[in-house]
Amino acid sequence: MAMPKELTKQELSALREQFPILQQEVNGKPLVYLDNAATSQKPKAVIERLKRYYLEDNANIHRGVHALSQRATDDYEASRAKVASFIGAKDPGEIVFTRGATESINLVASSLAQSTLQAGDTVLVTEMEHHANIVPWQLLRDRIGIKLATVRVSDSGELDEEDFYLKLESEKPKLVSFVHVSNSLGVINPAKKLISAAHCEGIPVLLDACQSIPHFPVDVQELDCDWLVFSGHKLFGPTGIGVLYGKKDILNSMPPYQGGGDMIESVSFEKTVYKNAPERFEAGTPHIAGAIGLAAAIEFLESMDREALLAHETRLLEAATKGLQTVPGLRIIGESDNKASVISFVMDAAHPHDVASFLDAAGIAIRSGHHCTQPLMIRLGLPGTARASFSIYNTLDEVDALVEELVRIQKFFA
Amino acid sequence: MAMPKELTKQELSALREQFPILQQEVNGKPLVYLDNAATSQKPKAVIERLKRYYLEDNANIHRGVHALSQRATDDYEASRAKVASFIGAKDPGEIVFTRGATESINLVASSLAQSTLQAGDTVLVTEMEHHANIVPWQLLRDRIGIKLATVRVSDSGELDEEDFYLKLESEKPKLVSFVHVSNSLGVINPAKKLISAAHCEGIPVLLDACQSIPHFPVDVQELDCDWLVFSGHKLFGPTGIGVLYGKKDILNSMPPYQGGGDMIESVSFEKTVYKNAPERFEAGTPHIAGAIGLAAAIEFLESMDREALLAHETRLLEAATKGLQTVPGLRIIGESDNKASVISFVMDAAHPHDVASFLDAAGIAIRSGHHCTQPLMIRLGLPGTARASFSIYNTLDEVDALVEELVRIQKFFA
Repeated sequence: MAMPKELTKQELSALREQFPILQQEVNGKPLVYLDNAATSQKPKAVIERLKRYYLEDNANIHRGVHALSQRATDDYEASRAKVASFIGAKDPGEIVFTRGATESINLVASSLAQSTLQAGDTVLVTEMEHHANIVPWQLLRDRIGIKLATVRVSDSGELDEEDFYLKLESEKPKLVSFVHVSNSLGVINPAKKLISAAHCEGIPVLLDACQSIPHFPVDVQELDCDWLVFSGHKLFGPTGIGVLYGKKDILNSMPPYQGGGDMIESVSFEKTVYKNAPERFEAGTPHIAGAIGLAAAIEFLESMDREALLAHETRLLEAATKGLQTVPGLRIIGESDNKASVISFVMDAAHPHDVASFLDAAGIAIRSGHHCTQPLMIRLGLPGTARASFSIYNTLDEVDALVEELVRIQKFFA
Repeated sequence: MAMPKELTKQELSALREQFPILQQEVNGKPLVYLDNAATSQKPKAVIERLKRYYLEDNANIHRGVHALSQRATDDYEASRAKVASFIGAKDPGEIVFTRGATESINLVASSLAQSTLQAGDTVLVTEMEHHANIVPWQLLRDRIGIKLATVRVSDSGELDEEDFYLKLESEKPKLVSFVHVSNSLGVINPAKKLISAAHCEGIPVLLDACQSIPHFPVDVQELDCDWLVFSGHKLFGPTGIGVLYGKKDILNSMPPYQGGGDMIESVSFEKTVYKNAPERFEAGTPHIAGAIGLAAAIEFLESMDREALLAHETRLLEAATKGLQTVPGLRIIGESDNKASVISFVMDAAHPHDVASFLDAAGIAIRSGHHCTQPLMIRLGLPGTARASFSIYNTLDEVDALVEELVRIQKFFA
């Protein structure tokens, strides 16, 4: 197999120049931003696109015949088409714009609670889910009496595939919903295989792609997931915009989530008729600028060699893994060979929050805590972890700076 | 009574310079933007604030100890406090950030459906509501069997106050929800009086302030509404951000809407504990930049003499009303003496869509159609109207241009 092309120093430097926020000092040190799993930074192209929208085209969409409204509508719908082609959807109508992945999952949960899910039905998730893929189903447990079953995670932080297949049989879930890449551990789940197994039992699958889509290409037709959700702000896009992909027939079979303007064919007090997807699920004025900015983020990403970006991130992860292994009293949490560029760890010497504070004093931004995966932390017997998460613009020098500071922390607290 | 100070030509011209989008030509004519009830334009201060957030401070909030996350959290929470003081709320905790007014109403409807609203209960709205204040209740009608009662609108487009009081008695609603200013007609409802009447019967009230808050000061304590909703994009703010105000005790008594990160105290598969408001209702990463941009819009508005702005808008409305009355075959819809600067009309000579298209050719942006108030159109026996809606940056010259073109339309189609 040919080695994928890697980013040259010049290319990486040019890439970093696209992210002006990175050129700052924090606490007197150059910012090292390693909190990309929480949110990514935005390239100039996205910031400028937002600005241009507000400076030139801002108008409400879909209902206006005037020029600005037409332009804003065209740009909004072109953004939907851009997202569709980016994830390999068959049709732009399969893309619903939401506030983020959390809302996307809540939308599906709430809508299915009006249609296919009933008291006693089981939804199968995994022990490594983000709260966004747990709490919406717990709300349904309280509201309509569904049951929640979970797939085991191993001590090394990997999904127990055998348990997944067993639970498909034993729990007979009506729906399976799981994370593509763990936000806490970085482990990549074999989504295609798991989806295929669920489909063999006739069970539809929702895939949380928040942490996969910023790192490697995700194709909904290849995966054959029934729904896919992700957040724009983790994909170099603006805040407040996210995506729900759903197979067209499925979306059109789902009852509305929110009611309001733009999602209706006609309204009278006696009878209201809803539009088909995607409009059915976009009540009210959407985050027009957000959708347009997300499309700009995707264009930015597509303008680069994504294989080279992935190779670069893989190199960062390998260097970080090797480096962290040299720090005395440090334990990496999540030991899978198949990981995106997220690395979680704990230190004997210091609590994760102290690690994060200490690193912040050195200009290094990481995250500490439960990462909105408390059940996973409970499973692994940890109060939380420190987590460094890398993006395309991080450098090997930044990995070195992280390792160096962790060694200092170990000495300081020991 | 002293006459309120009006904007001088110089002040108006300086104000218009704050809105670069207005300095463009559409179809070879200077843009005349009279679609402000659909969405307002954004001042430089808002666009620059968004840019600064992404260039300097972008990070996920609430869960990070690093500097960027702290800054973003501080700015986000300061924006909440700014909104609270702007509408006279007692406490920033009474402000929930949503995508917009539509989501705010859906949030209240959905949450109350889990708590106080039950099959057979009545929600009272008016015939002049926006779809956003009709469809969410119709969804509850379908889901849990509530009833929907309506207050009559008179032929002149005013709320029938007597009918409001009668319906409070006869329908014994569990909730009243109505619009402060009609988006279609501009008529201002006597909110304080109506809320007080509902409270006398012990009935809580939701007020839709989308079309009042961009035009005149709205104080939730003076009005004593229990909930108030509005959209940021209609108040010179970014798209994708809105507000739900609720009295603190009421918000804290309401069950969660969406589930996810940031709205929980703790999560386990057995038991999840939710935070109090406002966090309880803000699941997932919010539209951080949107909240910060909305605060910038409010600061922009507060930096000016709001009485003078209102006087200016009143003058625009008066001039438009007088001017439109001179156009043969034109009928103004909504004849109240108490209107915000929104004016709806129909013409004998042309369908509202043709009017809007003709005006667009002359660079004038208005809206045509049902304005998401189909039941009101049915009530008034109209297929729709043409609607010109003014904002602080519009000029008397623009009103003249509108009137001139309407005269041309009348001649052209007659």
